[in-house]
Amino acid sequence: MRAELIAVGTELLLGSIANTDAQMVSEALTELGIDVLYHTVVGDNPARLRDALDLARTRADLIITTGGLGPTYDDLTKQTICETFGRANVFHPELADWLRARFAATHRVMTDNNLQQAYLPEGCTIFHNHAGTAPGCGFCEQGVHVLMLPGPPHECRKMLETGALPYLRALSDEVIVSHTLRIYGQGESTIESMLHDKIAAMVNPSVAPYAKTDECMLRVTAKAKDATAAEAMLAPAVAEVMEVVGEWVYGIDVENLESVVLAQLKEKHLTLAAAESCTGGLIAKRMTDLPGASEVFYGGVVSYVNAVKANVLGVPQSLLDEYGAVSEPVARAMAEGVRRITGADLGVSVTGVAGPSSDERGNAVGTVYIALASAEGTVCRACDFGKRSRAHIRAHAANTALDMVRRRLNE
Amino acid sequence: MRAELIAVGTELLLGSIANTDAQMVSEALTELGIDVLYHTVVGDNPARLRDALDLARTRADLIITTGGLGPTYDDLTKQTICETFGRANVFHPELADWLRARFAATHRVMTDNNLQQAYLPEGCTIFHNHAGTAPGCGFCEQGVHVLMLPGPPHECRKMLETGALPYLRALSDEVIVSHTLRIYGQGESTIESMLHDKIAAMVNPSVAPYAKTDECMLRVTAKAKDATAAEAMLAPAVAEVMEVVGEWVYGIDVENLESVVLAQLKEKHLTLAAAESCTGGLIAKRMTDLPGASEVFYGGVVSYVNAVKANVLGVPQSLLDEYGAVSEPVARAMAEGVRRITGADLGVSVTGVAGPSSDERGNAVGTVYIALASAEGTVCRACDFGKRSRAHIRAHAANTALDMVRRRLNE
Repeated sequence: MRAELIAVGTELLLGSIANTDAQMVSEALTELGIDVLYHTVVGDNPARLRDALDLARTRADLIITTGGLGPTYDDLTKQTICETFGRANVFHPELADWLRARFAATHRVMTDNNLQQAYLPEGCTIFHNHAGTAPGCGFCEQGVHVLMLPGPPHECRKMLETGALPYLRALSDEVIVSHTLRIYGQGESTIESMLHDKIAAMVNPSVAPYAKTDECMLRVTAKAKDATAAEAMLAPAVAEVMEVVGEWVYGIDVENLESVVLAQLKEKHLTLAAAESCTGGLIAKRMTDLPGASEVFYGGVVSYVNAVKANVLGVPQSLLDEYGAVSEPVARAMAEGVRRITGADLGVSVTGVAGPSSDERGNAVGTVYIALASAEGTVCRACDFGKRSRAHIRAHAANTALDMVRRRLNE
Repeated sequence: MRAELIAVGTELLLGSIANTDAQMVSEALTELGIDVLYHTVVGDNPARLRDALDLARTRADLIITTGGLGPTYDDLTKQTICETFGRANVFHPELADWLRARFAATHRVMTDNNLQQAYLPEGCTIFHNHAGTAPGCGFCEQGVHVLMLPGPPHECRKMLETGALPYLRALSDEVIVSHTLRIYGQGESTIESMLHDKIAAMVNPSVAPYAKTDECMLRVTAKAKDATAAEAMLAPAVAEVMEVVGEWVYGIDVENLESVVLAQLKEKHLTLAAAESCTGGLIAKRMTDLPGASEVFYGGVVSYVNAVKANVLGVPQSLLDEYGAVSEPVARAMAEGVRRITGADLGVSVTGVAGPSSDERGNAVGTVYIALASAEGTVCRACDFGKRSRAHIRAHAANTALDMVRRRLNE
C-alpha cells in the first residue's frame, strides 16, 4: 500500500506550527508496513486542496488528511473531499446528538456552526473524536482509501489510535507487533555495528535502530496471523538482541528513563532526592513530570551557587575552597548532603560546567561529576561530555545521573 | 512571490523526525511578505524529487529545498535539481579547499565522498555552511528562483539567516522590519478583540497576533526603503499598541520570560531563589537554561514532599497540619524559607495540584498558590488554572511565578 499524507492548514504554511501530525501518522503507517511516499501541505484553500487530492489519487492508494474538520468557515476538508470523490456529505443525526451532549457536559453553548461537524461522507466509517469535537472518517472509492483526521495533534493522535489504525489493520489479514528497546549510553552507529549481521539477517521478525535525542532505540517487529503468533516470534528475537546490547537497554516499551527509575523506586520501596548544580533542576523537573512521583521522589536542592551548596546541603567550605565546586569531593558531599537533609534513601548529585565558557578553575565545558549516595556508601563518576551546547550537556548529565540510579536499583 | 518548499528525506516519510525546517523557512518567508503555498516532502528518490520539482516550477516562482546535500550516496538533491533545470553541476575548488581545512581543524579524516559537497550548479550564489559541511546555493532559471538548504535543522537555520534571507532580500527594493511584543496573562482572542480596530486599520505598519504555547505575541511589521525608515514608522505604531496592551507585555524582541527576569535581576543587582512543590524544579530549570544565571539565581529547593518543606525550608509543621501543603500560609512560608536559607534577595514559591487527581484535602486540579518574599514582605496569589494537563498546569504556574517576579522588579 502506498500512502500520501495531506495536511490542510494555512497556519502550517505561515510557519506558526510544524506538521507534527505528519510525523505521527507516518511513524504509525511505517509500523504497519505501509510505505509513505509523499507529504503535502496546503492552506485552507479548496481549489488547491482539490488539486492536491486529484494528484494524490493518481499516485497513492491511501490518502490521509489532517486538519480542516472543525466548525469554522475555513474548515473545508470534508466538502472538498466529497466533491473530489463524488460522495454526498450527509447529516448524521447521531453525531449531532453526541455534539449537543458533549457541549452540555462541559457547560458550553453550542453555536449552530458546530453542526457542520455532524456531516460526513455517505457510507463512511465514522472515527469518533475522544479529545475534541470534530469527528473523522474513512471510506474507499475506486480502490483509494481516504481517511480524515483532525488537525490538533492531541486529537489527531487519539483518533489515529482509536479510529484510523483499526480501520487500516482490518484491511490486512496480518498483524504487525513490535517491541522497542530503549538504549542509553551507546550511540546508534555503535549499536548498529554491534548488531550489523543480525539486522541484515533478520527479516521477520526484523530489527531496526532509530536515533533519538541523546539516546537510541531498537525496534523488533514481527508480522503474523494474530498477536499471539507475533509475540511468539518476538520473544526469541528480543532475547537474541538483548544478549548483545542488553547492557545498555534501560527498558522495553517504556516511556523514558525517569519512568523506569520511578517504577523501580516504587517496586523496591526506596526514595530519591537530587542535589543539582549544572543541571539546575532538570532531574527534579523530569522526575516530577510523572504523576505519582511524590510517593518516592522527595525533591531536592538546586545549589546553583556555592553558598547554597555550603549552607543548605552542608558541603564543607574547605572542600569548595580546595577542590572547587566542579570536583569529585564536592559531588560526593552534595549527594550525601541532600540524602541527609531530605531523609531520602538515595541522594544523587550533579556538578559540572554546562558552558558556554569553562569555569574559573579552568574546568573545560562538558566536565561533569555525578555522585550517588546511599546507606552503603557513595560512588562518583567523572564525565566528559565534550564542548557541546549547554542544553545538550545538561540533558546528558541528567540522563547519566538517572541511569546511575537505575543501575543501582537493578543490582 | 509564491513559494513552494520541498523537503527531501526518507526519514521524514518514515516519521523519524518532523519537518521543522519547513516551519522555520515558512516563518521567515512570511516575515518577508512571501506567500508559501505548498510544502512537499519526498524521500531520497530522484524520480519522485524530479516530479515534485517539475510540478513546483509550474505553480511557484520560488522553490526552496531542504535536505539531500550531504556526502552520502542518497544525497541527490543537487544532481536532480541540475538535471531538472538544465544546469551543469560543477566542481568548485575553493569549496574543496574549505572542506579540507574544516576537516583538518576538527582532527577528522576527510573521506573522498565528502568532495561531492564541492559540486554546485554553475553560476549559482553559494551559501556557506557555518554549522556543518554541506554548502547550499541559490540561482534563477526562467524566472524561478531555486534555493537549496541543508536538512539538519541547526544547519538549515544558520544558512537561512546568513545565505537564503540575504539572497531573497536583495530581490526586493524594500526592507521588512518587525518587532515582537511578548504577552503573558491574556489570551490571543482577548488581545485580538482589544486591538480589533487597530489590527484592521493598520496596513503599513501592520499588527498581527500569534498564539504561542501558554502565551501570545503581537508582531508589528513595517515595509520601507531602508531599515532607518522602517524603524521610524515602527516607533509610533509600537507605542500605539503598547498603550492598549502594555499592561501584559513582558518584553519586546526578547527570548522568553526567564531571560527578562534574568536581565532585570542583573540590572537591579538583586538575587532570586525558588521553592518549588508542584512545579518540581521547572522554574530553576528554566532560569538555569540561560548562561550566566548563577550571577543572580542562587537555586533553591524542590520540596516535593512535606518533610522537605518542613525540614529543609523550615515551613512550620503546624501550618502543614492545619492548612495542608496546598495553601496560602504554606506558600508564604516556603517563599520566606527559601529566601532565608539561600540568602537571596527574593524568594519565589509554588505549591499546588498539577493533577491528574485532586489532593488528599480535596483541592481541585489546577489550584496553585504562588508567593514572593522580599525584605519588604511577602505577597501571595491564589490561582485556578482549571482541570488541564499536568504539563500545562506546571508551565502556567512557572510562568505566573516568573511574571510575578518580573512585575516586582519593574516596580
